[in-house]
Amino acid sequence: MKVFIAGMDGYLGWSLAVHLTALGHEVAGADLFLRRQWVEEMGSDSAIPISAMERRLAALRDCFGRTCYFVEGDLRDYDFVERILVDFQPDAIVHLGECPSAPYSMIDVHHAVFVQTNNVVTTFNLLFAMKSVRREAHLVKLGTMGEYGTPNIDIPEGFFEIEYRGRRDRLPFPRQAGSWYHWSKVHGSNNIMFACKLWGIRTTDIMQGVVFGTHIDEMLGDEHLRTRLDFDQAFGTVINRFCCQAVVGHPLTLYGKGHQRRGFLPLRDSMQCLTLALLNPAPPGEYRVLNQFEEVYDVTELAIKVQAEAQRLGLEVVIRNLENPRTELEEHHYQPDHQQLFDLGYKPTREVGVEIRTMLEELLVHRDRIKARQGILVPDVRWNGQRRRTMFI
Amino acid sequence: MKVFIAGMDGYLGWSLAVHLTALGHEVAGADLFLRRQWVEEMGSDSAIPISAMERRLAALRDCFGRTCYFVEGDLRDYDFVERILVDFQPDAIVHLGECPSAPYSMIDVHHAVFVQTNNVVTTFNLLFAMKSVRREAHLVKLGTMGEYGTPNIDIPEGFFEIEYRGRRDRLPFPRQAGSWYHWSKVHGSNNIMFACKLWGIRTTDIMQGVVFGTHIDEMLGDEHLRTRLDFDQAFGTVINRFCCQAVVGHPLTLYGKGHQRRGFLPLRDSMQCLTLALLNPAPPGEYRVLNQFEEVYDVTELAIKVQAEAQRLGLEVVIRNLENPRTELEEHHYQPDHQQLFDLGYKPTREVGVEIRTMLEELLVHRDRIKARQGILVPDVRWNGQRRRTMFI
Repeated sequence: MKVFIAGMDGYLGWSLAVHLTALGHEVAGADLFLRRQWVEEMGSDSAIPISAMERRLAALRDCFGRTCYFVEGDLRDYDFVERILVDFQPDAIVHLGECPSAPYSMIDVHHAVFVQTNNVVTTFNLLFAMKSVRREAHLVKLGTMGEYGTPNIDIPEGFFEIEYRGRRDRLPFPRQAGSWYHWSKVHGSNNIMFACKLWGIRTTDIMQGVVFGTHIDEMLGDEHLRTRLDFDQAFGTVINRFCCQAVVGHPLTLYGKGHQRRGFLPLRDSMQCLTLALLNPAPPGEYRVLNQFEEVYDVTELAIKVQAEAQRLGLEVVIRNLENPRTELEEHHYQPDHQQLFDLGYKPTREVGVEIRTMLEELLVHRDRIKARQGILVPDVRWNGQRRRTMFI
Repeated sequence: MKVFIAGMDGYLGWSLAVHLTALGHEVAGADLFLRRQWVEEMGSDSAIPISAMERRLAALRDCFGRTCYFVEGDLRDYDFVERILVDFQPDAIVHLGECPSAPYSMIDVHHAVFVQTNNVVTTFNLLFAMKSVRREAHLVKLGTMGEYGTPNIDIPEGFFEIEYRGRRDRLPFPRQAGSWYHWSKVHGSNNIMFACKLWGIRTTDIMQGVVFGTHIDEMLGDEHLRTRLDFDQAFGTVINRFCCQAVVGHPLTLYGKGHQRRGFLPLRDSMQCLTLALLNPAPPGEYRVLNQFEEVYDVTELAIKVQAEAQRLGLEVVIRNLENPRTELEEHHYQPDHQQLFDLGYKPTREVGVEIRTMLEELLVHRDRIKARQGILVPDVRWNGQRRRTMFI
């Protein structure tokens, strides 16, 4: 299968390039390396050192004997995107070329505008280029479970059938996102749903839970195959942040009461699920929505797991509650469906504790890199528009 | 009341400036005159001649003895928007500064990107400027009934309470827009709903039906007070287009079977409703949605009304069906609520026939202007991405 990865230099993008190349697929990618800049702007760097793209590609060739194609460029430039599709003729396109951070989008008006326009325009360019030169390809777009928010009813996979005033219809499930970033993903989902109806394009829109993990097995052969691991407030996801805090003895920081419930999955499961979606494309014209996570956890429950695993490694860490910089419910109903990926054959890892222990062991090696940036372990981007360090409560 | 009108040079923007000034309110406006350029790009011009802004403002002063402030500039520039709010300190902001055309957004990728980014960014700038300098002001944003699409159930005003798997919640009504333009309005609505929750901003989001009409009474004192009237495929709304077709003896063109049902309202009713929303602001933090139309009509029914009124004026016109350039249902359920505006005191005109007759009489004066551009009375922008003149069927 020929797969084009938009945003191949990121946490998931690079992991997917390694995973698919190892499986024998033909991979091409594009990136403008903005993620490296954004993390620097947040005063941070990847906890695990990553290589320049040329070294990464050379390592892929050495380890798997296959060439992965790469082109540096801006996915907001339509001609650039169309040229790639003309040249590479992919069977599938995985769209990871969006800015993936809620706090980054909440910094100020300029960041809000950047995140939403970047995410809307890159998605448009991929859709229009598919329409023009590769209409039969399968678009796999990374969305987020955060698009749904936390309604007081169960969350289906994208659509639901309801009765209202005695009539019935199958409708898109209402979205109630919680940041300008999350709304940008809703805007993209809506645009893609319409493109499928309009042009018969086939799409799988992945409503992904929060991913955690320092590697996938295929990366272990070469240090240049490693993917990034962020721990700053904007690009570090919650378990990754907890693990980085644990290895430097920083309190694990819960926002507010800390009983937010979310779907989570290990990086290896994310790769497994994306591959299942690629191998089982949606039929032409279908806008298919998959909720992609292994299990729902309360974030306090996860902090306790990280604390316990850290203790086994001789690390004493405390768990502390911070003022919540976000506007969100801290206790709520959360019951999302996630059956379709199981129907496609998803075998979940189910060993969160083991995964966390491995993460801690790997991050201990890079403890000094995290320690050098300890000041950024407490957030200061607030949803009310102020930028002020949050306090322990 | 001090009202800032973003997009004051347009069909509704200028009408509202005249209407509010006549009522004695203090009005300021901004515009970049893009609407004049877009219509020119479509090969057309306003059927009714309109004046340059300086002449318009002078006529307002002459007729009503009040100064209406105006500044030319780009609402996509945050500093420009913030400066206006600082200087004028409005009590209310009416956002008409968006590109309002479905066909224009469907021309190609560049138009799709332009319409969505323009509409998202202007809305963001107004929201952030309100947060920074005028949080207590009331935002009245023009949306469209087209955001809802044509679901097989009744359409409430923005939100509905539903039961799903035994639990209940009040949720945003799912949107199923039918063009990139209509989706841009959904993106804006979603962003505004979130800003209200986040910052306590008060908003009335107007889901407006299709507006028709050549003037409001306050314009009749001076030719320089007239508002534009477009008849091209992109910026001419359906009854306005029918009337322009009628006065030059062109067939009234229905798309496909022609049984699309939509909510309509005369220009004078639109002004009445916007004023009611302004005089009865939403409470702080509320995102209030009003469905704004007088009555639902089948477009064939409206074509017959225009034909009948034209006949009384001695104009023989036929009604013909064209290939539908759009992707839309041509026969469907359509039952939207619109009670809230009546509760605020809306007195509908209810005399569509009289309104149409007046329009025809006024347009007959400008028959030659329309005749000179007859070639654009049949659409060529197709929803499938091709640009090819539609054929009579």
